[in-house]
Amino acid sequence: METLLRRCQIRSQIVRECIAEFLGLYIAVLIGSGAAAQVVTSRGTHGDYLTIQLGSALGAVFGIFVARGVSGAHLNPVYSLSLCVLGRHPWKKLPLYSLSHLVGAFLGAATVYLQYYDAIQTFSGGELLVAGPNATAGIFCSYPADHLSFWGGLVDQVVATALFLLCCVALEDQRNGPLPDGLHPVLVGALILTMGVSMGSNCGFPLNPARDLGPRLFTFVAGWGEEVFKAGGGWWWVPIVAPFVGGLLGTLTYELLIEIFKDLKKKKVLWKNG
Amino acid sequence: METLLRRCQIRSQIVRECIAEFLGLYIAVLIGSGAAAQVVTSRGTHGDYLTIQLGSALGAVFGIFVARGVSGAHLNPVYSLSLCVLGRHPWKKLPLYSLSHLVGAFLGAATVYLQYYDAIQTFSGGELLVAGPNATAGIFCSYPADHLSFWGGLVDQVVATALFLLCCVALEDQRNGPLPDGLHPVLVGALILTMGVSMGSNCGFPLNPARDLGPRLFTFVAGWGEEVFKAGGGWWWVPIVAPFVGGLLGTLTYELLIEIFKDLKKKKVLWKNG
Amino acid sequence: METLLRRCQIRSQIVRECIAEFLGLYIAVLIGSGAAAQVVTSRGTHGDYLTIQLGSALGAVFGIFVARGVSGAHLNPVYSLSLCVLGRHPWKKLPLYSLSHLVGAFLGAATVYLQYYDAIQTFSGGELLVAGPNATAGIFCSYPADHLSFWGGLVDQVVATALFLLCCVALEDQRNGPLPDGLHPVLVGALILTMGVSMGSNCGFPLNPARDLGPRLFTFVAGWGEEVFKAGGGWWWVPIVAPFVGGLLGTLTYELLIEIFKDLKKKKVLWKNG
Amino acid sequence: METLLRRCQIRSQIVRECIAEFLGLYIAVLIGSGAAAQVVTSRGTHGDYLTIQLGSALGAVFGIFVARGVSGAHLNPVYSLSLCVLGRHPWKKLPLYSLSHLVGAFLGAATVYLQYYDAIQTFSGGELLVAGPNATAGIFCSYPADHLSFWGGLVDQVVATALFLLCCVALEDQRNGPLPDGLHPVLVGALILTMGVSMGSNCGFPLNPARDLGPRLFTFVAGWGEEVFKAGGGWWWVPIVAPFVGGLLGTLTYELLIEIFKDLKKKKVLWKNG
Repeated sequence: METLLRRCQIRSQIVRECIAEFLGLYIAVLIGSGAAAQVVTSRGTHGDYLTIQLGSALGAVFGIFVARGVSGAHLNPVYSLSLCVLGRHPWKKLPLYSLSHLVGAFLGAATVYLQYYDAIQTFSGGELLVAGPNATAGIFCSYPADHLSFWGGLVDQVVATALFLLCCVALEDQRNGPLPDGLHPVLVGALILTMGVSMGSNCGFPLNPARDLGPRLFTFVAGWGEEVFKAGGGWWWVPIVAPFVGGLLGTLTYELLIEIFKDLKKKKVLWKNG
Repeated sequence: METLLRRCQIRSQIVRECIAEFLGLYIAVLIGSGAAAQVVTSRGTHGDYLTIQLGSALGAVFGIFVARGVSGAHLNPVYSLSLCVLGRHPWKKLPLYSLSHLVGAFLGAATVYLQYYDAIQTFSGGELLVAGPNATAGIFCSYPADHLSFWGGLVDQVVATALFLLCCVALEDQRNGPLPDGLHPVLVGALILTMGVSMGSNCGFPLNPARDLGPRLFTFVAGWGEEVFKAGGGWWWVPIVAPFVGGLLGTLTYELLIEIFKDLKKKKVLWKNG
Repeated sequence: METLLRRCQIRSQIVRECIAEFLGLYIAVLIGSGAAAQVVTSRGTHGDYLTIQLGSALGAVFGIFVARGVSGAHLNPVYSLSLCVLGRHPWKKLPLYSLSHLVGAFLGAATVYLQYYDAIQTFSGGELLVAGPNATAGIFCSYPADHLSFWGGLVDQVVATALFLLCCVALEDQRNGPLPDGLHPVLVGALILTMGVSMGSNCGFPLNPARDLGPRLFTFVAGWGEEVFKAGGGWWWVPIVAPFVGGLLGTLTYELLIEIFKDLKKKKVLWKNG
Repeated sequence: METLLRRCQIRSQIVRECIAEFLGLYIAVLIGSGAAAQVVTSRGTHGDYLTIQLGSALGAVFGIFVARGVSGAHLNPVYSLSLCVLGRHPWKKLPLYSLSHLVGAFLGAATVYLQYYDAIQTFSGGELLVAGPNATAGIFCSYPADHLSFWGGLVDQVVATALFLLCCVALEDQRNGPLPDGLHPVLVGALILTMGVSMGSNCGFPLNPARDLGPRLFTFVAGWGEEVFKAGGGWWWVPIVAPFVGGLLGTLTYELLIEIFKDLKKKKVLWKNG
C-alpha cells in the first residue's frame, strides 16, 4: 500500500504547497458554509447563529491542522500578502497561493451545494434566490445587512480585517510569548469565532477575498445568476478590496507598536552580555 | 485492596484491548445519546440542538481518554479499517475491535434507556415510536430527514465521513505538526462537534457503523420494533456502508495529497545530511 | 506587606489543606449556583440552560485551580472516599475534607443569596418557594423532575456518579496517557459540563453529597424551611447516598478493566529489562 | 521594510508598555462592546446573551495575547493595583498604566460606535438613549438592573471582583501548579466568561474601572449626554470604586489562605535539604 501511495506522489514542492493551501481552504469552506446551510435550510431547528460561527471557526481550525505542515496554512490571500510585505514569504508565491485559495473556496462551496442539494431544493422550492425569506445565497458568501451604507461596509471590513490580522501576527510572534504547538490553530479558530460574535451582523465578516469570491463565483454559475454580483449595490468587490487595506493596516500597527520593541530589548540584552 | 484488584485482572492483551474499545464506545454512546434523550424528553427545556452536539463531542472525548492508553481508542470500525489499510494496525484485530464497538454501543444505548426510562415513558405516553412528534427512536440512532433522497443520504455520509477521517488522520500525523499529548482527544471531540454543527441536519452524522447499528439493534429488541429498520425507506444500511466508502476516500486523500510529501522532504533532508 | 502576610499565616498543614478544600468548593458553588440564580431570576433573559451548565463547569475549573497546589482539589467527598479506598489518600483526612466541603458549599450558597438578594426578592415577590413557577430553591440544590420515580432517581445518580468518577480516575491516571499540567482542571470542568448536557434533566446531576447538602441546609435555615427536605418525597438523601455507591462502582470499574492492565504491562517491561 | 519599521520605533520602555496596555484594552473593548452592539442592534437575530459573554471573554483573550510580551497585559487598573500592593509592580507605573487603560477603553468604544454607526442609527431611529426598549448606552458600559438596590450593587461588585482577582492571582501563581504558557490568556478569558454567565444579571459585571469609565466618557461626549452619569441613581461611580475594594479583598484572601503556605512548604524543603 505504502509503495503504491509513494508512486502516486507529486514531487514538486510548490505544487504540494498549493495543494495544501487548496485543501485547507476547501475544508474550511466545506465546514463553514455547511454550518450555514444546515441552519438556513432547517429554519433554525438544527442550530442557530452561534453554531454557524462555531462552524466557521472549527472549519478554519481543521483546515489549518491539515495544511500547516506543508505550507504553513495561510488559507487567506490577505495573510499571504502581509507575510510578503514583511519579507517573510516570497512574493512570487503570492499569486499561486491566492489562486489555490480561490479554487479551494469555489470547490468547497460546490461540495456544500452537493451535500445540501435536497435540503436547498426543499427549502427554496427550487428557486435559487439572493434575497427574501427563502434566500440561500447567504449560505455561500457575504451580503450586507439592509441597514449598512457603502461607507459603513467599507469601515466595517477595514476595522475587522485590521483586528484579525493584528491578532494573527501577534499569535505568530514567538517573541511576544511562546505558544504550545497545537494551540495555535485552535486560537486562530477562536479568533474567527470572535469576529463572528463581535463583527458579524453588518456584513458577515468576510475577511478573506478568496473565501468570499470563490463561493460567489460558484453561486453565479450554479444558478443564482447575476444577482450575486448586483446585490447590495454591487457589494461583491468590497470584501475583496477592503480586507487587503485592513490587513496591511493591522499588520503594520502590530509591527510598529509591539513587534519591533522586542528586537530592541533583545539587542539591549545582547549589549549587556557583549 | 490493590492485591484484590490485581487478582481479578485479565492477563490477555487482546482481551484488554477489546474491553477498552468496548468501554470507550460505551461511554461515548452513554453520554451522546444521553444528551439527545435529555433534550427530546424535556421538550427542549433542558438543552437545545447545540447541547446534543456538545454531548456527542464530549462523549467521544471522555471515551477516548478512558481507552487511549490500552488500545489507542479507535472507537469506530471505519477508523480501525483505515489504519489496517495503511498497514498501521493488524487486520486480524479488525473484527474483534468492530465487535467490541458494536457491543459497547448496544449496551450504551441500553443504559441510556434505563437512565431515562421514566422520562421516555412520560414523554411518549408509553408508546415507543420511530416517527411523529412523540418519536424517541432518534435518541439512539440516525434517521434521515424528510427532505433527504436516497442518493442525497449516500452523498452526505460519504462526504462527511471522508472529511472526518481525513481530519482524524491529519491529527494523528506527528510529522504534519506536533500536538500536546492531552490535546488530541479534545480535538477529536471538536471534530465531532464540527460534524454536528455543519453536517448534522440531513441525517444526524452517524459516521460510525457500530455506533449506529448497535443502538438500532437495541431499540429493535427493546420495543421500538421492526420500524427501526424500515424507517426512511430502509435507511439503516446506509450509515453502515457509506462511512466505510467515505472513510477510505478521506484517508487516501490525505495520504496522497499531504502525507507522502513529508516523507519526501525528510528524505531530501537526509540526503543533504548524508 | 509580605512580612505582614507571612505573620498571619497558618502553619498547620492539615488546616491549610482543609482551608483549600473549603475555598475550592466555596468558589465552585458561588459560580455554579450564581449561574442558576442569574438565569432563574432574569427569567431566561440573561442566560439559558447551557449557561447554567457552563457555570457549574467553570466553577469547578476555578475551584480546582485555586485549591490544587495545596490539597489536590478533591472538592467532593465521593472523590476523597475513592482515593481512600484505593489507598491513595489517608482515611483519617476523609471526615475533615468532607466537613470542609460541606462548610464551603454552605457558605457558597449563602454568598449567592447575598449577591442575588434583590433579584430573588423581586423575582419571588418575597416568598421563598421550593416548587411552582416562582420557585427559587432549585438555584441552590437538586430536586427531582416530576416524571422521576424513586428508583429512577437512584439509578440516575448511580449511573451518573459512576461515569463521573470513572472519568475522573482515568484523567488522573498518568500511565493511561500523560496530560499537560494545566489541562487537567479544564477537563474536569468539561466532564461536569458533560454531566449537565447529558444527565441533567432527571434531577440536576448532584454527583456531590457536600455540594448538595450544604446549600440545602443553607436554604433550610435561610427561609425556604422544611420543604427543602420534604420535596420530591424526601428526595434529599438520595444525592447523599447514591453518589457514594456510584462513585465506588465507577472507580472499581476503571481499576478492574483499565488500570491494572497497565501495571501488568509495566511489569512485563521490567521483566524484560531485568 | 524592516529597516523602515525599525526607524519608526519608539525606544522608551515605559512608553512601549503603556502602548501595549492601551492596545490590549482597546482590543478587548472593541471586541467585547462589538459583541453587545451586534446583539442589541440586530435585536437578537445575530447572537444572544451567551455570544455577548463570549465576546467579552474572547476580547480579553486576544487583548492579552497582543500585550503580554511587552507589559504583562494587566488591562485593568485593579489588577495593576493588586500587583503594586503585593510589591510585584512599581507604584510609579500605576497611574501611567491606568491612564493607558482609560484611553484604550475610550477609543475602543469610539471604534465600536464607528463600526456600528449605521446599525445604531437604524436601531434607535437616531436617538441615543440610555434606557427603554431602544436604549443603546448599555452596549458600551454597565448600568444596574431595575431590581438592584444601591447596596445590592455594591455587594455584587465587591463579591464579583474579589472572586475575579482571587482567581487571577491563583492562575499567575506558578507554585500553585504550573500552566502551559499559551493557556494562561485563555483561562483569563474563561474567567471573564464565568463572571458573565454567573454574575452578569445584576449590573453587567464591570470588574474594571477603566473599561467602564472610558466608554462611559465616550458615550457622554458622543451624544448620549448627562444621562450616562445620572442613570441608576448615579450608578457610574460604583464600578469605579467597588472593584478596587473587591480586588484587594480577593488578592489578600488568596495570599493569606493559599499563597503563603507554599512559601512555608518550600522553606521546610529547603531546611530539609540544608
